[in-house]
Amino acid sequence: MTASALWQRYQDWLYYHEGLDFYLDISRMRFDDRFVETMLPKFEHAFAQMKDLEAGAIANPDENRMVGHYWLRNSDLAPNADLKKDIVETIQQIESFTHDVHSGAIHPPSATKFTDVLSIGIGGSALGPQFVAEALSADAPAMAIHFIDNTDPAGIDRVLAKLGDRLSTTLVVVISKSGGTPEPRNGMLEVQNAFQEKGLDFSKQAIAITGTGSNLDQLAKSEGWITTFPMHDWVGGRTSELSAVGLVPAALQGINIHEMLEGAKEMDIATRIPDLKSNPAALLALCWYFSGDGKGKKDMVVLPYKDSLLLFSRYLQQLVMESLGKEKDLDGNVVHQGIAVYGNKGTTDQHAYVQQLREGVPNFFLTFIEVLKDRSSASIEVEPGVTSGDYLSGLLQGTRKALYENERDSITLTIPEVTPRMVGALIALYDRAVGLYGFLVNINSYHQPGVEAGKKAAAVVLDVQSKVMEALKKENTPIPLATLALNAGVPDDVESVYKIVRHLAANNRGITLHGDPAKPGSLTVSAT
Amino acid sequence: MTASALWQRYQDWLYYHEGLDFYLDISRMRFDDRFVETMLPKFEHAFAQMKDLEAGAIANPDENRMVGHYWLRNSDLAPNADLKKDIVETIQQIESFTHDVHSGAIHPPSATKFTDVLSIGIGGSALGPQFVAEALSADAPAMAIHFIDNTDPAGIDRVLAKLGDRLSTTLVVVISKSGGTPEPRNGMLEVQNAFQEKGLDFSKQAIAITGTGSNLDQLAKSEGWITTFPMHDWVGGRTSELSAVGLVPAALQGINIHEMLEGAKEMDIATRIPDLKSNPAALLALCWYFSGDGKGKKDMVVLPYKDSLLLFSRYLQQLVMESLGKEKDLDGNVVHQGIAVYGNKGTTDQHAYVQQLREGVPNFFLTFIEVLKDRSSASIEVEPGVTSGDYLSGLLQGTRKALYENERDSITLTIPEVTPRMVGALIALYDRAVGLYGFLVNINSYHQPGVEAGKKAAAVVLDVQSKVMEALKKENTPIPLATLALNAGVPDDVESVYKIVRHLAANNRGITLHGDPAKPGSLTVSAT
Repeated sequence: MTASALWQRYQDWLYYHEGLDFYLDISRMRFDDRFVETMLPKFEHAFAQMKDLEAGAIANPDENRMVGHYWLRNSDLAPNADLKKDIVETIQQIESFTHDVHSGAIHPPSATKFTDVLSIGIGGSALGPQFVAEALSADAPAMAIHFIDNTDPAGIDRVLAKLGDRLSTTLVVVISKSGGTPEPRNGMLEVQNAFQEKGLDFSKQAIAITGTGSNLDQLAKSEGWITTFPMHDWVGGRTSELSAVGLVPAALQGINIHEMLEGAKEMDIATRIPDLKSNPAALLALCWYFSGDGKGKKDMVVLPYKDSLLLFSRYLQQLVMESLGKEKDLDGNVVHQGIAVYGNKGTTDQHAYVQQLREGVPNFFLTFIEVLKDRSSASIEVEPGVTSGDYLSGLLQGTRKALYENERDSITLTIPEVTPRMVGALIALYDRAVGLYGFLVNINSYHQPGVEAGKKAAAVVLDVQSKVMEALKKENTPIPLATLALNAGVPDDVESVYKIVRHLAANNRGITLHGDPAKPGSLTVSAT
Repeated sequence: MTASALWQRYQDWLYYHEGLDFYLDISRMRFDDRFVETMLPKFEHAFAQMKDLEAGAIANPDENRMVGHYWLRNSDLAPNADLKKDIVETIQQIESFTHDVHSGAIHPPSATKFTDVLSIGIGGSALGPQFVAEALSADAPAMAIHFIDNTDPAGIDRVLAKLGDRLSTTLVVVISKSGGTPEPRNGMLEVQNAFQEKGLDFSKQAIAITGTGSNLDQLAKSEGWITTFPMHDWVGGRTSELSAVGLVPAALQGINIHEMLEGAKEMDIATRIPDLKSNPAALLALCWYFSGDGKGKKDMVVLPYKDSLLLFSRYLQQLVMESLGKEKDLDGNVVHQGIAVYGNKGTTDQHAYVQQLREGVPNFFLTFIEVLKDRSSASIEVEPGVTSGDYLSGLLQGTRKALYENERDSITLTIPEVTPRMVGALIALYDRAVGLYGFLVNINSYHQPGVEAGKKAAAVVLDVQSKVMEALKKENTPIPLATLALNAGVPDDVESVYKIVRHLAANNRGITLHGDPAKPGSLTVSAT
């Protein structure tokens, strides 16, 4: 296509949202009109299903739950008065709590104000807050935020070491819907232990964001934590950033949560329009479908050209892959759906893997994110008439062009600035694009049955561990691995027993391995 | 396969390195013996080519350069006495410089000691140092490190804001082989400007790591910077972590660079062995070839179960994708090679996208990285007899098992602890695996011709920008975009002109757009 024809295609397909000053350019996706025509009936179907979902239909049939994260941005849409009240009151509660923390009305026992936030959560309870903190936290935020998002002991130690004596002025936010997910539970116990070791009262510095009546809710109430905020069963983890899960950490950092909600609401209105060319989420879903043939044949590479959006691709990685990566469609057919997502930021990634994108396996499509405003102050010239920001912009345009010339497709989102309103809008845009795409390919985007398998297998491993330790106590001399497996009641699973004792032995847990590590089958084990 | 058969396969294929206490398990890659046999001649060929390369053959034919990063870890292998001397002296120079900085013998004009390091570099000059800092920097390092790895003005401002008044005690390390790469050049100019605005003398606080005689080298010498360290033309950016590029930032943080080099040397020795089963890098290359059919059909998902290894997958993303992502093989055939790499860390990613890995598109293989030692101190119990680290370990084993049951293959690396020696060994292991794989698929792993295209296209954009600004000066009234494109000498490229003026207008650069942003074809432009 000539440059002029491409310019025409750019104009023909440009989506512009006036209120948000947001552009979506899909001109570099090489679909034709015939493809679009074949997709129109599918989109009609998807728009209709989305409408039912927003009206409170059970859109998560496996779990018999409503999908209500859209109501968070506009409580008038909630299907009943109780839900509406709950949404409005939670936001009021967040505001009043944040006000009291910032003013010192709520303060730690040993100081007049809290200085830091320590957020303990994983998955949807970490990625949204981390993305928003990186994107929007001020250079000198109202409170600095830290995250424990894993059950890695060394990682927990590092966060606690960084906090040091400021632990006494740290507000701990424990985020877990059930309270039963091991990672946040373990993180909480480790942090409670650190408080105890320093002679601090954890309950006076902790809040919980959790399901009403959950184990965590009960614990927080029985121990007299400062307060709790609700996690509703109609909000999934990966779409919870605009619920208390995301709003509490954001507000504590001084980020304007009203603007975030407002931006999401505006984008929600735009993405509700049941017309392909007027709906930016539908246009995204169209491109995804085109690129991967509705089967995820191509990876989605996300490249924001702005440092503060670094974590957006990780956020999308969860949102897209956990929503769309499904074995079966809604009719029970095995489909192995999904779209793999990766990316960090431009131009940085140009110096990492754009070599492969341009020349190598053509198994991806790109999403560029352009931010028009370079910085808050004026720029110096790095060459006559040229700024650092001009380079950032030029390198984006140049890379988009160079890739297109090699038949690598790309989408480009352009936003004026990284503000709470735009971040809210981006979250809402992709929420909806994923939902629409899910309907296009006829899957349930709102559950995650595959996550359980690893957890169950892990529970089995921990159960074997306890049997192994029990069995070893009865032995006076080293015994072979196979004997230990037999005595622990898992004669076939010598490998698991081996892995368990190797890990325990490395951590001074009263177990010693004897023999040649290169020949695990020959090892013997004893209680130390 | 039954659990017992898998345990046998585990033992049959286990690689163990005694000196490093390093394990490589490829039993969950479902290749059979026949596949291995067909690969043996290819490996013989690859081992022979690797031997020539290490002996100083021109292994980078396009650029007529030797590939010498292996010599950095063992200078005795350098092909001549001058190179050997250079390697040894550079390491001595790094040690003596670091000693002087830490002792205060070298100090900033206004204080007795430097407190922080600000590293300015991109691609290979950033990813290695960032990975190593995250993996190995102490809780209270000798000097805290900060990175400018982009030409994003807001990103640069954020780093400078974080440093604040400590800029006066910050040692700036500018890393650029030629000094001509725009991103580090722009970063340097921005930081020089910040020094000037604070009345500080940049040259008294700056060092350069650059090619001898480069523009940057000349600048540093003419301005009297503290010192310079060499970047050799026989070390590529993505394999430069164990050259001055990585060693200077590491040493300044107080990381033991001798152990890093020693670990790499030990792994180099192991990965030189021309025998598949005795060579862990060859085993990795075998798995990659098997999984993607030697054509990169599957993505490599890298999941270290240890927070401090978070950036290892980003480091590998560059190393693997830039090395292997090539359009043509060495015979000039169009092959579109490469392997896409992504991943963050476990268990965290289990709560993000393992749903898709287990159930969705089977377009990947996994690499688990297990770290046996949980933390430096003893652990509390989170349940009777169970620690946070047991959960981390159990969730890794459980996920590996659950994925294998769904026919998702995985490799597992096990290391005792994240130490400088192990990090050096991991870097060396993957260096060699990539090199061997490159020979297996007959490509040049040591150049990156595709990176230039985006840069050239960006230069064109910046050139058009200057013509646009020139052309606009001559106008008294707003003119249509198409007229502006014509006057700027690019009548066909209205789209580039549009993008340029939209960006300039958003940054108060003396340009105004008039009309409806939704209809870019109708816009007119004027100098403000």
